[in-house]
Amino acid sequence: MFEKEQLTKKTENFSQWYNEVVLKAQLADYGPVKGTMVIRPYGYSLWEGVQNILGKAIKEDLQTPNAYFPLFIPYSFLEKEKEHVKGFSPELAVVTIAGGEELAEKMVVRPTSETIMYSMFSKWIKSWRDLPFKVNQWCNIVRWEKRTYLFLRTSEFLWQEGHTAHATFEEADQMAKEALEVYKKFAQETLAIPVIAGKKSETEKFAGAKTSYTVESLMPDGKALQSGTSHNLADHFAKVFNIRYQSKDKELLNVFQSSWGLSTRILGGLIMVHGDDNGLVLPPKIASVQTIVVPVDSLDNTIVFYSKEIVDLLKKAGIRADLDLRETLSLGYKFNDWELKGVPLRIEIGKKEIEQKTITVVRRDTGKKVSLTKKELVEEINHLLDEIQADLFLAAQSRLAENTFEAESYLEFKDIMKDSRGFIKAFWCESAECEQKIKEETKATVRVIPFEQPECFEKCIYCQKPASVLAYFAQAY
Amino acid sequence: MFEKEQLTKKTENFSQWYNEVVLKAQLADYGPVKGTMVIRPYGYSLWEGVQNILGKAIKEDLQTPNAYFPLFIPYSFLEKEKEHVKGFSPELAVVTIAGGEELAEKMVVRPTSETIMYSMFSKWIKSWRDLPFKVNQWCNIVRWEKRTYLFLRTSEFLWQEGHTAHATFEEADQMAKEALEVYKKFAQETLAIPVIAGKKSETEKFAGAKTSYTVESLMPDGKALQSGTSHNLADHFAKVFNIRYQSKDKELLNVFQSSWGLSTRILGGLIMVHGDDNGLVLPPKIASVQTIVVPVDSLDNTIVFYSKEIVDLLKKAGIRADLDLRETLSLGYKFNDWELKGVPLRIEIGKKEIEQKTITVVRRDTGKKVSLTKKELVEEINHLLDEIQADLFLAAQSRLAENTFEAESYLEFKDIMKDSRGFIKAFWCESAECEQKIKEETKATVRVIPFEQPECFEKCIYCQKPASVLAYFAQAY
Repeated sequence: MFEKEQLTKKTENFSQWYNEVVLKAQLADYGPVKGTMVIRPYGYSLWEGVQNILGKAIKEDLQTPNAYFPLFIPYSFLEKEKEHVKGFSPELAVVTIAGGEELAEKMVVRPTSETIMYSMFSKWIKSWRDLPFKVNQWCNIVRWEKRTYLFLRTSEFLWQEGHTAHATFEEADQMAKEALEVYKKFAQETLAIPVIAGKKSETEKFAGAKTSYTVESLMPDGKALQSGTSHNLADHFAKVFNIRYQSKDKELLNVFQSSWGLSTRILGGLIMVHGDDNGLVLPPKIASVQTIVVPVDSLDNTIVFYSKEIVDLLKKAGIRADLDLRETLSLGYKFNDWELKGVPLRIEIGKKEIEQKTITVVRRDTGKKVSLTKKELVEEINHLLDEIQADLFLAAQSRLAENTFEAESYLEFKDIMKDSRGFIKAFWCESAECEQKIKEETKATVRVIPFEQPECFEKCIYCQKPASVLAYFAQAY
Repeated sequence: MFEKEQLTKKTENFSQWYNEVVLKAQLADYGPVKGTMVIRPYGYSLWEGVQNILGKAIKEDLQTPNAYFPLFIPYSFLEKEKEHVKGFSPELAVVTIAGGEELAEKMVVRPTSETIMYSMFSKWIKSWRDLPFKVNQWCNIVRWEKRTYLFLRTSEFLWQEGHTAHATFEEADQMAKEALEVYKKFAQETLAIPVIAGKKSETEKFAGAKTSYTVESLMPDGKALQSGTSHNLADHFAKVFNIRYQSKDKELLNVFQSSWGLSTRILGGLIMVHGDDNGLVLPPKIASVQTIVVPVDSLDNTIVFYSKEIVDLLKKAGIRADLDLRETLSLGYKFNDWELKGVPLRIEIGKKEIEQKTITVVRRDTGKKVSLTKKELVEEINHLLDEIQADLFLAAQSRLAENTFEAESYLEFKDIMKDSRGFIKAFWCESAECEQKIKEETKATVRVIPFEQPECFEKCIYCQKPASVLAYFAQAY
């Protein structure tokens, strides 16, 4: 009866565990073209959760409506901003033939949409009355990769990209920071992933930005994952795309801009951060099924009727509940399957439960079992879901703390990076040379320069000259 | 004060009226690459309405979850199904370079996703237990066009495409018909667009299908618009992609499939069918703003406070309401703007309304003005919105009836097609020759062979041989 799908242990071979969870839980699969991925319905239901919850925050908190811009960008648009084309040209997919004819001007498949959007902004923005101008799109993006790492690195991925134009540099910067705050809140409160928010180094910033901001999370193998970024683009694109507005004083001025994005990568982080040896563990807020009801005795009318009644009760209370009535599968297989899929709560209903008018509920994260009466069901399930959400965040937070180190010397830095990886907080002089040397010698890069900085700075961990920041270093996905 | 935007009259120059409405109401704009379109926030809000309402029906009524498959399809996949590649090859966009290298195998940007999806289906479907297998995706599609007709014909468009696999031909056919029924219901009940449901002719069917079904609507210029299609693909793709399942009797059998899609084209239909000389007229169910509140006296605290109170009351009741507090615009401009944007109800609030604790409400479709007390507000606004929804459908339905003709002779057929266009119901022998001749001589094609057919058939309108169907002919977008 017990058909347990063998799963590699998370602690034994992390990357194999990860791939197996993604494939066996049917989150995604490899596409036929190298580097591509298919997001299967269960994986896509998580992305729909992102679209619903983050999407609402983008509309309401950031006051940014959705729109849709073309997939194809004339190559010449990309060339207008020098840093931008330099950053993106190695990974472009290029359309050279369309409608049976060789194209006079090649088109690139969008690797990001600054250039195509801003060519339109210059047409739409005329006056100070049009500012701030904000737009967001949920779409597919292509950045050519040959090695696929499901969700984390794929040639095509899905994301949202917000783009804004403002009257001043300060407003654009403020906007970029507000978007980052929305990402931070979303990562922490919805996905239960703790993040460090701050600035990118000059080397790591977005191609074309004045300043890039990031929220960085830490994976169980000690590598960092960039979980959302926002950019203060200053007037770099406004200058080359002529995005100007007439001020109240009738002056013609350049706008200042921000852009910000969060992609399907974050689902890789979600899987890695919370999963265990039995598969996925989903925070209730993002789980598309929060509670699965499994009848544990033979499927006669009484048990089916009672089970449906329980599911209806939960659904009416706004809990995402589902019922497993699959007849050809063993109970052991079903339990494993829902554990693999990371559903936060499993409700078991058998003869005993029907007699006593109770249900038995099992937590996915702890395995703890409790019996509930029908009367207290909704309140207690809601309570359990809240508790799981909070517990998963706290657990991830203490793992983050345990794996965040402080290095006093470069020798110590190298040792930590060799042994346990994780984040290393270290003082840095902000020179690209030191950053490059550290990368060559330890594979670690500056992931984030946190907004909160100490009052005084010690010496640079590498060159021993006076440091200007305290940075988080890590190897990265 | 009155800054009326000049709009061409709908009856004077229909296609110019259409383009102006789309551009001035900021639904969409021309993209920088020929044939492409930008969907601006207001236009996209209508597409979001489609995604919400039709999306719910796809999930719940058709039991089909969402997923995401790659944008790029190896050229060889398309070649597997002969009719399919023949149908789509003239309009493909082809990626030949990626990551700085010439590709060994060219990739096409999806013109539809049968081939890429079914290459995966063959991997996932193993047993009768896996059937029916259903999946849907909302995505962008590229079919190369040089002449743009905003929403109606663009190189890139957005759509949803549902794809299913079944054990039998009959089940696949049933599925295609159920999907069509969902489209019909959506077009009629949400968009208030009456449609004729039925079968496509052999010439007009989808490349690779056994049978195609369609819902066709009629535009005010007498041309038909295909508003949603579904296809019974039989085992055509299963054969070439090896999609087989083991039956209960352990036999290895081909699956039978359906696919079905509805695109941003439908928004073109929505604009055309209901719009008038003052711009868009939106059915309340699809309108992203159902009620706009406009203060009509100077914006002091009292009027702003009362207006906000009204908006809150409406929002709390689930009515999509918004408040126009733009200070730099004249009242005339504001009224015209909301009329242009087709918002179903405008609420005017001035000193008189504040004193009397009333509001004045104006219908976009009829211009009829009524005064409501605050107490009856929510109930009456809901009632008015329902009434507008019903009235718009009835009006469109009688226009459809008025412009649906019956031709007894081919001479009559030609006269009607020359004078007033519209649908012509005529008997047809189902030969491709007659269809081709009629097309050459009148530009009209067989749009749909309705499911409901008469008991006996007269002679073919063209060749005078015995007819086998009564078909709807029209010129088409």
